[in-house]
Amino acid sequence: MILPGLAAKYQANLLDSVIPFWVRHSVDWEQGGYFTCLDRDGTVYDPRKYVWLQGRQIWMFSRLYNQVEQRPEWLEIASHGMRFLLGNARDAQGRYYFRLARDGSPSFFQRKPYAAVFAVMALAEYARTGAGHEYRDAAVSLFWQVIEWIRRPALLGREALPGQPSFQSLADSIVVAKMALEIADFDLDSRIRPLMDACLDEALLHHEPEREILLESRGGGPDARLFPEGRLFNPGHSVEAAWLLWLLAEKTGRTQELPKIERILEGSLNYGWDAEYGGLHYFMDIENRPLLQLEASMKLWWPHAEALYAAVLAYCRTREPRWLAWLERIDEYSFRQFDDPGHGEWFGYRDRQGNLTHSLKGNHYKGCFHVPRALLLAWKTLEAGVESCGP
Amino acid sequence: MILPGLAAKYQANLLDSVIPFWVRHSVDWEQGGYFTCLDRDGTVYDPRKYVWLQGRQIWMFSRLYNQVEQRPEWLEIASHGMRFLLGNARDAQGRYYFRLARDGSPSFFQRKPYAAVFAVMALAEYARTGAGHEYRDAAVSLFWQVIEWIRRPALLGREALPGQPSFQSLADSIVVAKMALEIADFDLDSRIRPLMDACLDEALLHHEPEREILLESRGGGPDARLFPEGRLFNPGHSVEAAWLLWLLAEKTGRTQELPKIERILEGSLNYGWDAEYGGLHYFMDIENRPLLQLEASMKLWWPHAEALYAAVLAYCRTREPRWLAWLERIDEYSFRQFDDPGHGEWFGYRDRQGNLTHSLKGNHYKGCFHVPRALLLAWKTLEAGVESCGP
Repeated sequence: MILPGLAAKYQANLLDSVIPFWVRHSVDWEQGGYFTCLDRDGTVYDPRKYVWLQGRQIWMFSRLYNQVEQRPEWLEIASHGMRFLLGNARDAQGRYYFRLARDGSPSFFQRKPYAAVFAVMALAEYARTGAGHEYRDAAVSLFWQVIEWIRRPALLGREALPGQPSFQSLADSIVVAKMALEIADFDLDSRIRPLMDACLDEALLHHEPEREILLESRGGGPDARLFPEGRLFNPGHSVEAAWLLWLLAEKTGRTQELPKIERILEGSLNYGWDAEYGGLHYFMDIENRPLLQLEASMKLWWPHAEALYAAVLAYCRTREPRWLAWLERIDEYSFRQFDDPGHGEWFGYRDRQGNLTHSLKGNHYKGCFHVPRALLLAWKTLEAGVESCGP
Repeated sequence: MILPGLAAKYQANLLDSVIPFWVRHSVDWEQGGYFTCLDRDGTVYDPRKYVWLQGRQIWMFSRLYNQVEQRPEWLEIASHGMRFLLGNARDAQGRYYFRLARDGSPSFFQRKPYAAVFAVMALAEYARTGAGHEYRDAAVSLFWQVIEWIRRPALLGREALPGQPSFQSLADSIVVAKMALEIADFDLDSRIRPLMDACLDEALLHHEPEREILLESRGGGPDARLFPEGRLFNPGHSVEAAWLLWLLAEKTGRTQELPKIERILEGSLNYGWDAEYGGLHYFMDIENRPLLQLEASMKLWWPHAEALYAAVLAYCRTREPRWLAWLERIDEYSFRQFDDPGHGEWFGYRDRQGNLTHSLKGNHYKGCFHVPRALLLAWKTLEAGVESCGP
């Protein structure tokens, strides 16, 4: 009875609370694209368009259309965002801005590839709505461009300076895995399989064997642990990476990696969970030294959304009772701290003890993505799990 | 008895706790410059050199040498930092890096003028140690360069994009006032007086008459309040600006501005003070809408250090009892929450309720500056106040 109940809970939270919030409040039918700076009740408090979140919401509504139900409203919302993204988000060199004015004119350029990452995901999933092969081709072409930007940050204006240790970020492995899983099925390019293998290998280089976690940075040479980056653990990233790698290992047939990936997921939850106040820490230093991030001790929504789905996946694949225990613990904390049934969507930010610090439902980084993605993945995985193995 | 007691308290905190911490732990006698990423007990947790804080510490030790006592140790520490700064902090175009490796090689460039601002202050105060006119000339020349960088951010690689409202930041007025007060006495250039007048006028354009505060941004056009920047209030900045403008108005003889500046200081403390938990809020939205900064609800050390000196200044100048009440309230909160007599220096970061979130004494933004500057200014102002008007 537990699994069907959870599947129904996540389905209801997704379709009756989270998605209606974004349908009602985020679409700018007048000037295009999506508002994401939305207060608790959906009031817009910044009309600008944040490009990461335009791509993420196009992806989400396309995915709902493709995997839940072909509702014309969902496709129209995805198309609405896609027109705005393609019409406004790129500069003359094809690089993606971070922020646009409400009307789409450029407002801020961030020297990072992530705005383009979510455009790849948007293009790929939108292509599967039947929108046409030009979207598929654009996704593949932008994918390889992003790979190049990750390899050569100077192309985005971010020069590597000689005094900085050459850290490589787990975030880069995560986004490559995300994009690769999206476009792998197009199977257009023989380069994609070796790239997926390399992504899996590189992500596992972040493995820290004592705690069985993925550290945020790798490389940096023999002195790496002298630096905060070299000691940084981001439980949300480690957990998100673990489920992405799980799917990547299945996709590439490298199931011999699964025990290690399962240990990483468990280690990340064990070490990342706040024994005193509950929930996942936002940032940790593995030597318990000070963190540079002021928000380090806060509790954020997205690591919990990622952990929820990761625990569902681990339980459905392994049927180990300890995964059910983790799932119940994460579910209880997440819904108690973040769900807001009165207005829809989840809150985003609490302090370590659990006091709400921000009333908002969306901002420049929180949009229609982590929560609905986790709920959709969890619901569908539980449903498939019930069918294959029983509740 | 109150004023002499406070003067002695601030002198003792400065000379027996704060400065010894930096003397003992921050100077990198091996590779030059200052460590600032120091844990509670002074342990280094990041050996890199943050350029804002190199300039600030050179300024502070030069100021101590110039105004407290000509201790050779203080001058040697200032000279040690100056050699490292001049030897390493600039790129081929004369722009200042944000971060250097321990050995001085460049590690990160921030597209902002502030690293150079603190170099101006360092050069100017160091020149007054008797170090020679070349430091004075370098300060003046870099000062005008910084003015140009503030006017034309594209020179630092920060392009103004057409979709972004043309906000101007209170931080820019604050740093211009800081630098101008440092170099005004050199009296080398007839342009400095009109620039000081313009700085005072421009800072007062941030005035929000309903609450009698300085908003963080001005400009932005008729729609400015649609944007988080246009509604942003940073109590620490408003308070720091108020005492800088007070000194600037005295320096330029524009004492007719003082009543307005006094109202701004009082309004900023009234509106910025957390009635529930005490202390100054870090960021506020004047329409009570959500803030984009995750650390918005935290309590930071520097607004309290700035407020401490501002209240001393206002009381010593006006002798109004309400300023003594503010001084006692700020003093009580600051020493209870931030002072750390066991190890020296102040803590930096607590959550809204007052729980310590970071054990550190220094990081990439917290160095040897706000606390010792406020203590020195408060001590010396109180001492002069006692002499001129009695306790």
